Amino acid sequence: MTPVCLVLNAGSSSLKFQVFALDGAGDPRRVFRGLFEGLGGAPHLLIWDGAGAAEADATFDEGFGHEEALLHVAAWLREHGSGLALVAAGHRVVHGGMAYAAPTRVDNAVLGALERLVPLAPLHQPHNLEPIRIIRRRFPDLPQVACFDTAFHRDQPELAQLFALPRAMTEAGVRRYGFHGLSYAYIASVLADTDPALAAGRVVVAHLGNGASLCALRAGRSVATTMGFSALDGLPMGTRCGSLDAGVVFYMLREMRLDADEAERILYTRSGLLGISGLSNDMRELRMRAAADPDARRAIDLFVYRIGRELGSLVAALSGIDALIFTGGIGENDAATRAEVLRGAAWAGFTLDEAANASGGPRVTTGASPAAWVVPTDEELMIARGTRAALSEAQC
Amino acid sequence: MTPVCLVLNAGSSSLKFQVFALDGAGDPRRVFRGLFEGLGGAPHLLIWDGAGAAEADATFDEGFGHEEALLHVAAWLREHGSGLALVAAGHRVVHGGMAYAAPTRVDNAVLGALERLVPLAPLHQPHNLEPIRIIRRRFPDLPQVACFDTAFHRDQPELAQLFALPRAMTEAGVRRYGFHGLSYAYIASVLADTDPALAAGRVVVAHLGNGASLCALRAGRSVATTMGFSALDGLPMGTRCGSLDAGVVFYMLREMRLDADEAERILYTRSGLLGISGLSNDMRELRMRAAADPDARRAIDLFVYRIGRELGSLVAALSGIDALIFTGGIGENDAATRAEVLRGAAWAGFTLDEAANASGGPRVTTGASPAAWVVPTDEELMIARGTRAALSEAQC
Repeated sequence: MTPVCLVLNAGSSSLKFQVFALDGAGDPRRVFRGLFEGLGGAPHLLIWDGAGAAEADATFDEGFGHEEALLHVAAWLREHGSGLALVAAGHRVVHGGMAYAAPTRVDNAVLGALERLVPLAPLHQPHNLEPIRIIRRRFPDLPQVACFDTAFHRDQPELAQLFALPRAMTEAGVRRYGFHGLSYAYIASVLADTDPALAAGRVVVAHLGNGASLCALRAGRSVATTMGFSALDGLPMGTRCGSLDAGVVFYMLREMRLDADEAERILYTRSGLLGISGLSNDMRELRMRAAADPDARRAIDLFVYRIGRELGSLVAALSGIDALIFTGGIGENDAATRAEVLRGAAWAGFTLDEAANASGGPRVTTGASPAAWVVPTDEELMIARGTRAALSEAQC
Repeated sequence: MTPVCLVLNAGSSSLKFQVFALDGAGDPRRVFRGLFEGLGGAPHLLIWDGAGAAEADATFDEGFGHEEALLHVAAWLREHGSGLALVAAGHRVVHGGMAYAAPTRVDNAVLGALERLVPLAPLHQPHNLEPIRIIRRRFPDLPQVACFDTAFHRDQPELAQLFALPRAMTEAGVRRYGFHGLSYAYIASVLADTDPALAAGRVVVAHLGNGASLCALRAGRSVATTMGFSALDGLPMGTRCGSLDAGVVFYMLREMRLDADEAERILYTRSGLLGISGLSNDMRELRMRAAADPDARRAIDLFVYRIGRELGSLVAALSGIDALIFTGGIGENDAATRAEVLRGAAWAGFTLDEAANASGGPRVTTGASPAAWVVPTDEELMIARGTRAALSEAQC
């Protein structure tokens, strides 16, 4: 039997899962990946094998939720994964607080600690923890490992993590945590494959997707990132505002007469590209409409402008820059965004290679240094790696 | 008789005033300057002449407020300003919204418009407007001019002024206004005196005082600044937090169970250098204690680190940098802060001149470009200039 781990990434109405074989000494090997959407309503399931061939396409009745989805995945694996033995579940957990800087085997104490972090990520953490609870209830013997989006940033210099707030608030955990850490950790792990010089260099990684942030790496370690305490800060995103003057929140409460939940909902779900354009949170749609629609154009331009400003801030954190890496859905697939960012970064020495960029790189600049690259990220592989590592440690 | 204008800068319990002669074609000439502190309690008044010689030092009874202070100044001027004829009052007004991009003669309509901006600067605007109302009541024939801290930033590129928020909020006035505009306008007006090449160049001005921000100038015009919608954003300040994840405000409301006023008060009055150090909002005191006290050291280090990060962001906005100018109380007087900022900006080519910096410059870098300079600001002179300009226009 081949030992496999189930990698889970749960949202409010979605459950992404992948199955990785842990046999052999090499990297975990992807066997299946799948996606439930519309959980709680009438969900839709798609499953592909490791080579991308469709394996399942199904819909379910109203009320089919996360627990039913997990049970369905387990049953489907027993039926279709002949020769595979499920030995662990690895979870993407958005927040590990100050304490968790590495993948962690989940026991009662850890689960309690992660539940106490819900106030730091109220819109994400509960959904991430739900499958952990379900599996503990339904498959109590299956080892579970939590892998954190914050962990990669925990050895940043103290100053990069500090807000200028009263010390009691800092000590209570109000810090710049940073997110997308699984993506940045993966990119850091393949820097040497991209260019051996980068492994020791000053690199900014642009993780640009529906969520978006930048991270400054020195010798493969995070020294600063644009996201802060919550998943709101830094770059504008599909529906999130990015950097905002705190005074705007007080204006929303007093002048717009919103309560905290309503104000927060606007900043998470009605802002960003969607808010500026009034049209869409999807960069593909905005690109299609930008020539004819000035609001779509403005949303794209603000996204690119803010990337440029934050890139400057991270160049300062790194005292220079050797390379810029684009990843995430927009970073990997939207040549126009890459071109606009690189043209705006000419001051730092970047020179766009139009042809290479149009064909997806991987190197999208001409000339010497600094270079820019397109590198696809793989957060699920990082979870599989982390899950295996945490299990090995537990067995020592 | 020499025509003079009275320049007023009113805070919650203070009233700063200066008297400028408007005779001749040259710059307005400072005749007196004075300061009431402790208004509403038992205030203290100091007055100096234009050369800095003390002219008055007095205390007043409990309950002596802004109105009594203004009447006292008028009476004192009649008594001591022989040969001077008061022809106008010029006011520092923190917020001019989107509409006021230049000094403006105040009539009923303007005063009404400025009162409607109170929600955008609830802690500052009411104090700025109070002396305007008092003078209209007590000296109804005296022309009054409002000069705005936001005005200098109004011709920034749209993208620099935009938050990624729903358009209805942007249209209602939720934008990055920027402040310290009178200081930046003054510095812009003397760029050519500092170095003729700078007037057309890319310059970052660091206005570092108890309030602090940076402004990027291209050919003397603001293209970006670190402060945003309120006076909270950007650099950490004496007691203000600077850049903050909006999620922190929701945490303060929900987890710390504060109401909006309490949360805002913490961010304005208990954060920044004071919050980090737990000791003082005064850079001079922190410098004295930094060698022995790691909390004082950390507050200074965070201030310098955040200046460095924001400097990088503004270098990106300018596509490079030709000069950095230090002004404001800390910028003009704290050689150690200047040295630490410039050492951190070596990546942009700055090389500190230790000796020149220790003696106050004006030029504090060695070698070619970019250069750094110390240039004392003069916001009151800008108000006097603006007041004269607005009066001349009104008479045309």
